[in-house]
Amino acid sequence: MTRPGRFIALEGGEGAGKSTQSRLLAEALRARGIDAVVTREPGGTPGAEAIRSLLLDPAGEGFGPRAEALLFAAARADHVDRLIRPALAAGQWVICDRFIDSSRAYQGGAGGLDDAEIMDLHRIGSQGFLPDLTLLITVTPEEAAERLGRRDVGGADRIGGRPAEYHANVAAAFDRFAAEQPRRFARIDGNGTPEQTHHQIMDALEDLL
Amino acid sequence: MTRPGRFIALEGGEGAGKSTQSRLLAEALRARGIDAVVTREPGGTPGAEAIRSLLLDPAGEGFGPRAEALLFAAARADHVDRLIRPALAAGQWVICDRFIDSSRAYQGGAGGLDDAEIMDLHRIGSQGFLPDLTLLITVTPEEAAERLGRRDVGGADRIGGRPAEYHANVAAAFDRFAAEQPRRFARIDGNGTPEQTHHQIMDALEDLL
Repeated sequence: MTRPGRFIALEGGEGAGKSTQSRLLAEALRARGIDAVVTREPGGTPGAEAIRSLLLDPAGEGFGPRAEALLFAAARADHVDRLIRPALAAGQWVICDRFIDSSRAYQGGAGGLDDAEIMDLHRIGSQGFLPDLTLLITVTPEEAAERLGRRDVGGADRIGGRPAEYHANVAAAFDRFAAEQPRRFARIDGNGTPEQTHHQIMDALEDLL
Repeated sequence: MTRPGRFIALEGGEGAGKSTQSRLLAEALRARGIDAVVTREPGGTPGAEAIRSLLLDPAGEGFGPRAEALLFAAARADHVDRLIRPALAAGQWVICDRFIDSSRAYQGGAGGLDDAEIMDLHRIGSQGFLPDLTLLITVTPEEAAERLGRRDVGGADRIGGRPAEYHANVAAAFDRFAAEQPRRFARIDGNGTPEQTHHQIMDALEDLL
């Protein structure tokens, strides 16, 4: 019988280093003989990537917070159903750049929906499916701003481009979730070099390996 | 102070005559000096029409019933927020070809979601907003099949093309909703000519005019 894989989510604000750390983690797992899939939200499947395009480049004046929360939940339902659950069942580890806690922080904490509403959407869409471990990577606002300034993206996207207060609310929400569920979360200091951050992540994963 | 308009939804299976009757109703209201907007679901706003395109022509293997229900609720949230509520507030009547009861019948009754889940999505997306009156137009399966056979659509769309049993479940669900909420629903026999059906609709609207 195949031993199911582990589901690891990386969370944090823009510029925290989630995508770099996802890649480093996958490489470290593969070096230990563990098959790992790197994916991201919103997206990860053809249907969810199509929803991502709608969210990042919407028609007309853009979606309000409630339509936006429903679209994220729809993308996640497809992603869980078509990629995450099948990969885990096949014994692969799944490393996901953003998951439910990003919806809770961005559409919930900072966007005006209740956390219970976000969790209701997740229950209806994805049976409330949660990661085995959620790595919350935190960086100071100054460090995040400097990293984002270095990115050659030709201007921030629709969500990344929101005001500083919005991002402060997001960070406060992530902190609260980690405090409320200390066993599901590991806090990772992302202010150092990528290698320093990666070592902390491997330490946090010790019990799952 | 502007008197708010009325919100009328038309429901029923494929080939029931909803779009023809929406048009006839709008013309009759305008002839009485009432400003009326005709719209449809999924769609009606730029954002909701973009979601409609995803639903009717999805990427990859298509969405599962839960992602689909979330997408319909997202489209409806945008439609209610950006078109229906503002029009009603401005004193216009809104005539909508399909609304929440189509989600209840198609994704709920026939698609495997609980009715309570569909209504939770509507509560979160659109504050549970309901029509003043829902016209349920019913036709026999034979009449519907004949009308659909006459349509020059080059093949049924993704939802219309589902098997007969699916459509029977949808019809049974609509019947149940109308029986449960007799004051919100008016049953309209759609088997006759468009004019005969239209006369029944105007009779059903008597109290709102």
